[in-house]
Amino acid sequence: MKYPRHAGVWKMLTASVCVALLACLHAQELRGHISVILLGATGDLARKYLWQGLFQLYLDEAGKGHSFRFHGAALTTTEQGQEVIAKVLESLSCPRDTAPARCAELKDQFQQLSEYRRLKTAEDYLALSKDIEAWVQREGLREAGRVFYFSVPPFAYADIARNINSSCRPGPGAWLRVALEKPFGHDHRSAQQLATELGSFFQEDEMYRVDHYLGKQVVAQILPFRDQNREALDGLWSRHHVDRVEIIMKETVDAGGRTSFYEEYGVIRDVLQNHLTEILTLVAMELPRNVSSSEAVLQHKLQAFRALRGLQKGSAVLGQYQAYSEQVRRELQKPDGFHSLTPTFAGVLVHIDNLRWEGVPFILMSGKALDERVSYVRILFKNQACCVQSEKHWVPDQSRCLPQQIVFYIGHGELGSPAVLVSRNLFRPSLPSASWQEVAGRPGLHLFGRPLSDYYAYSPVREQDAYSILISHIFHHRKDSFITTENLLASWVFWTPLLDSLAHEVPRLYPGGAENGRLLDFEFSGNSLAFSQQPLEQLVPGPGSGPTPSDFQVLRAKYRESPLISAWPEELIAKLADDIEATAVQAVRRFGKFHLALSGGSSPIALFQQLATGHYGFPWAHTHLWLADERCVPLWDPESNFQGLQAHLLQHVRVPYYNIHPMPVHLRQRLCAEEDRGAQVYAEEISALVANSSFDLVLLGMGTDGHTASLFPQSPTGLDGEQLVVLTKSPFRPYQRMSLSLPLINRARKVAVLVMGKMKREIAVLVSRVGHEPRKWPISGVLPDSGQLVWYMDYEAFLG
Amino acid sequence: MKYPRHAGVWKMLTASVCVALLACLHAQELRGHISVILLGATGDLARKYLWQGLFQLYLDEAGKGHSFRFHGAALTTTEQGQEVIAKVLESLSCPRDTAPARCAELKDQFQQLSEYRRLKTAEDYLALSKDIEAWVQREGLREAGRVFYFSVPPFAYADIARNINSSCRPGPGAWLRVALEKPFGHDHRSAQQLATELGSFFQEDEMYRVDHYLGKQVVAQILPFRDQNREALDGLWSRHHVDRVEIIMKETVDAGGRTSFYEEYGVIRDVLQNHLTEILTLVAMELPRNVSSSEAVLQHKLQAFRALRGLQKGSAVLGQYQAYSEQVRRELQKPDGFHSLTPTFAGVLVHIDNLRWEGVPFILMSGKALDERVSYVRILFKNQACCVQSEKHWVPDQSRCLPQQIVFYIGHGELGSPAVLVSRNLFRPSLPSASWQEVAGRPGLHLFGRPLSDYYAYSPVREQDAYSILISHIFHHRKDSFITTENLLASWVFWTPLLDSLAHEVPRLYPGGAENGRLLDFEFSGNSLAFSQQPLEQLVPGPGSGPTPSDFQVLRAKYRESPLISAWPEELIAKLADDIEATAVQAVRRFGKFHLALSGGSSPIALFQQLATGHYGFPWAHTHLWLADERCVPLWDPESNFQGLQAHLLQHVRVPYYNIHPMPVHLRQRLCAEEDRGAQVYAEEISALVANSSFDLVLLGMGTDGHTASLFPQSPTGLDGEQLVVLTKSPFRPYQRMSLSLPLINRARKVAVLVMGKMKREIAVLVSRVGHEPRKWPISGVLPDSGQLVWYMDYEAFLG
Repeated sequence: MKYPRHAGVWKMLTASVCVALLACLHAQELRGHISVILLGATGDLARKYLWQGLFQLYLDEAGKGHSFRFHGAALTTTEQGQEVIAKVLESLSCPRDTAPARCAELKDQFQQLSEYRRLKTAEDYLALSKDIEAWVQREGLREAGRVFYFSVPPFAYADIARNINSSCRPGPGAWLRVALEKPFGHDHRSAQQLATELGSFFQEDEMYRVDHYLGKQVVAQILPFRDQNREALDGLWSRHHVDRVEIIMKETVDAGGRTSFYEEYGVIRDVLQNHLTEILTLVAMELPRNVSSSEAVLQHKLQAFRALRGLQKGSAVLGQYQAYSEQVRRELQKPDGFHSLTPTFAGVLVHIDNLRWEGVPFILMSGKALDERVSYVRILFKNQACCVQSEKHWVPDQSRCLPQQIVFYIGHGELGSPAVLVSRNLFRPSLPSASWQEVAGRPGLHLFGRPLSDYYAYSPVREQDAYSILISHIFHHRKDSFITTENLLASWVFWTPLLDSLAHEVPRLYPGGAENGRLLDFEFSGNSLAFSQQPLEQLVPGPGSGPTPSDFQVLRAKYRESPLISAWPEELIAKLADDIEATAVQAVRRFGKFHLALSGGSSPIALFQQLATGHYGFPWAHTHLWLADERCVPLWDPESNFQGLQAHLLQHVRVPYYNIHPMPVHLRQRLCAEEDRGAQVYAEEISALVANSSFDLVLLGMGTDGHTASLFPQSPTGLDGEQLVVLTKSPFRPYQRMSLSLPLINRARKVAVLVMGKMKREIAVLVSRVGHEPRKWPISGVLPDSGQLVWYMDYEAFLG
Repeated sequence: MKYPRHAGVWKMLTASVCVALLACLHAQELRGHISVILLGATGDLARKYLWQGLFQLYLDEAGKGHSFRFHGAALTTTEQGQEVIAKVLESLSCPRDTAPARCAELKDQFQQLSEYRRLKTAEDYLALSKDIEAWVQREGLREAGRVFYFSVPPFAYADIARNINSSCRPGPGAWLRVALEKPFGHDHRSAQQLATELGSFFQEDEMYRVDHYLGKQVVAQILPFRDQNREALDGLWSRHHVDRVEIIMKETVDAGGRTSFYEEYGVIRDVLQNHLTEILTLVAMELPRNVSSSEAVLQHKLQAFRALRGLQKGSAVLGQYQAYSEQVRRELQKPDGFHSLTPTFAGVLVHIDNLRWEGVPFILMSGKALDERVSYVRILFKNQACCVQSEKHWVPDQSRCLPQQIVFYIGHGELGSPAVLVSRNLFRPSLPSASWQEVAGRPGLHLFGRPLSDYYAYSPVREQDAYSILISHIFHHRKDSFITTENLLASWVFWTPLLDSLAHEVPRLYPGGAENGRLLDFEFSGNSLAFSQQPLEQLVPGPGSGPTPSDFQVLRAKYRESPLISAWPEELIAKLADDIEATAVQAVRRFGKFHLALSGGSSPIALFQQLATGHYGFPWAHTHLWLADERCVPLWDPESNFQGLQAHLLQHVRVPYYNIHPMPVHLRQRLCAEEDRGAQVYAEEISALVANSSFDLVLLGMGTDGHTASLFPQSPTGLDGEQLVVLTKSPFRPYQRMSLSLPLINRARKVAVLVMGKMKREIAVLVSRVGHEPRKWPISGVLPDSGQLVWYMDYEAFLG
């Protein structure tokens, strides 16, 4: 049996019936019996946090009419296991205000309800199930549900899951919940695989993936805080007011003793992909009307993931504490010469492409062997005030010229406890007074540049461990405190490309602790991030201006007697983008506008992205965009060249509508109908707007068959004659195309041909040898009458 | 004779000949005689600064072979004048390091060369001219030139100028220079008039309009500083790095004793239009290659003026110290009830619309009766760094997380002397060591949030008065230190609209001095500026967040039997925007897209801005935008309805290109030609994309003649029949229009009619009474077949 048999029937019930039924089930549940099975019950995590969390659950809930039993399970023998568990149970602690005698009594009750058992084979699971059923029957109870908490390494997941599903599901009417601990995969593929595997044993609703950061009191307070302070935050929570968001987790410890795990994961997978990203979404997501609706919260979180701008290599800086490689060599028996590339420090710049957050830097940073242990989210607001009085008259809790910030202080650091801080010059926050209290004054304590007294500061009345909170949330079916499969995969979709691109990056070494000095400080500009200091061996004295782009490793040569620029793909694109910008700036300076004709295909997409994100100086307001060719499909079709331009460039820059000139392939709801005269219409538009029909720059590609724009070999149209724009036929779907003609292309002031990838190697060699044979190889006919031709080829295309 | 007779000949000489000739003349000039005529020689300014400046000129230049005579002139009798002048000359001071005996000797020489004479009539001027010629001949000198310094009220300018031009020009080969003191007009018109008048007597090259701020040592150093630190500043001097620029002049004195002048001018004309604007251009202008070329500097300055974004009423906040009106009443014999509207304090937000500065706020602020006397330009850089170490490890002169700023400290304030300050964590500036020295440490002195020791601070080796510097610049023909006519008029073009719009604005009263507290603090957001604190009578307790929209005071009623929503303009727009968003969200949820047809005009602009900036949840990616009507002009014409949509909405949100549907009024480079069938093309597009040709929402307005969309009274087209889109005629320019037809409008699911302003009151009353008479009042024909009609009218339109 894969899923409970009634799953199909359930789906047929209407929503309203469901709600009634669920309410009814919920009422029953209160009087039912719950079994909690802690897998890996003798392990570190279980001993340190989970048993205590279960005890807390018992204290909180048993009085409300539930019946509980706690089954610690592991692979060790019953005797050994029992011994360990006995010790753990003895060491449990009661809430602060419990009298010692009462505490002993409670612990005794809990111990009575707890047992250790070895769970290894399907039979063991079946036996457990039978035991539970027998107990329930004997005690005259109704079984409400079973919680399985996986505190085991991920390689063990599949077996356990199979056993639970086949042999240990509760009967109809009782629920199953499984709590899973990270890591949930190593990248998108492995996470997907693991999710698929688990999905064959459990329904989505049965799985509770734990990110213990979501159980931390301050993190769990982010959404309620946003909800309870809607009025004050509504006007503040956007790019108009937020200067930056920092999401930080600094550790002083190093990875010593854990390198076998760490070497495989590194800081991004260990901290950023999960903890910091979860926090990011809590800060950035649109606030649902009802924040207590798990479904709404999860949906809004997913939307936040979708709005994240893709990361590039330049989005991160990496470091590694100096002793790390030696620790790896020692612990993993690596040879003397071994140097690990695993980062133990990372700073990442995240941008969110929606109207609320566009342009606001979200900085994620975490590292080991740093100077302090602290973690927090800091929202720094823009200073948009001008204070007329001299500084000495400024009143800290009123002056809007002093920093305004909201800090979710997750823990540790100089404050030493979790807290929510709001600058007094911002607003007085509202927090539930039963659970949050004002922090007592701490003279001399400065946080984020201001004395503590400048903040409204609240800390929890009772500090609670994250696991206790999460165990309670599992019990209360609070799914929004856990990572759904969609959420998990969305996060990996976001992080995997960066991890891939950084796989061979050498992290900057740092000594560790306070000695790090400014070595790890970094700066951002636009979409990218760089260390503030040059590495020591490159340190040049001079004006400390912003980060500078790395020098191009660009090869300059000739190809078909025209200049050739060749480099690795990323550098090539950067160089081409720079050249286009320079051409644009010059054209705008001389003529007041810049006419750029662009081709479709995949190579230009990287170029569009580069132009969209890295080129602030580009005179978009004065740029006219034309298409060099187009497929005869509607403009919104994914196949349309224009659609690529729209998605990767136009969405991100401000080109006035009437400066955008898609090819009219779709007139009167028809595609490239001769009688609609689309080619002539485009030609007339060009003649009217482009002086002398001479584009400032035409960007072309080259097909493996030697085609360029949509001028194909052995096709008579567009190679010569008077026509500026022509309808052509492609050997590939969609067959119908519209294209600038060769004579029009050759009237341009400048033509750039971009050729990338080893697929183009063969044609590149061939075309280098042929003369002017446009009928065979249309690209060979590209030779501007009086303009300049430049070839941009990456090493794979040029050197093979 | 208007100009020297040879003017025409000069122009015929080629540039290179000119250069050679000028160099030659310059060499001659060194041996020539110069007459300086100080007009108003017995006045305040002359006694305080100008005579001293002339003495300085004599000390600096006489030793280099020039011969000088100084003629103090005024309207007083010779005897009285001589007496005053004698006293002034006696009180002149020598440079610091001059021995007393030497000083006495120098003063004696200067006195010998100085005389007083009454200048009143043309004959007086002619006599002066003859005297100079006689002296030159007697002494065997060659006359090099004459300087006339106008230290007289502007009403006297014309007479003096006429007399100089007609009776006191030097002979051929010698130059004429006239120095003029502000005010140079009261607004653009009067400045233009004055300039034209002066232009009839003097050539542009002969006039030196003095803004003494340009002679202040630190102000005069701005361009040289930018030039000498090009390498460091190149990467910093732009919107990518500059957070804001503050240009500040605070005074403690009030206007008492000067109200007859002040009442006519106010702080904007007195300080902002001239001093602060000049500084603004020095900071913002593109740096010429050669900063010592006056011509290049002046050209670049003019370009900076052209890039200034127009000011609106919301660009400024105004104040007036409480005692001012009483001072005016007393000094100008005004009645008891008189209250002046003249501002004595102003904060103005200036934006510069070019690639370098777009989005950077330039804040200009000046006022009397403030808490301190200080003036400075402060360039604050963005903090784009992330410092990994705890704050306590930050090193002030290195950490890029501490503020980074450049301050041109013009004078006074806590520092007490002019200085150039550069944060040490920015770069070490280069200043000419002969004239600038490092400022000595001043323990405990904090400037702009940081101790003085955090700055590289340089002050002039020798403090010089601005007038001495400017008199020297007149002598050396350094035109870039003066206000050219073009420069002056450009400044008035910029300021006049703001001054006009603020003419009836009541300034906020302030007590003066330190008591001002936070009363004058202001904040900016986007394009506008507002005081941080509500005026006292409106102060409401509550969370001190940013400006929050007030609660809607919305009146709900019926109008023409359809729902009417009425409120104050701001609330009405907010409500309409909310309703549109709700309709959009609902449509996208149901149909996957939202078809919205918008009208042109001014009321929708506020709506567009509201939608663009306040509605993050709007489903723009799924919204199709259509036009309800359009003028037959190109889409980029400022008159085009589409252009309003583009500028105020499309620039700010992300609507996919192919979801935007401007009306095809401009096909084949023709406007609304019948044969281009634009109306049919649009109708076909609507039929193809909008299900059942039924828009989800059509937004209309109502003209004072009862027109709506572009359907005008007494016009037969578009009121009934089959046509969805029609060409119509407007009674106003541009006459040709394209419009949705009434039948198409009435197919919409929802129609909203927005009516605002008291101009609409009359028609609103009329239309409320008429029946269905679309031929007379097209708006009366708006009645959706099965959709909903809602009227949005502001109180002025509805209640009158």
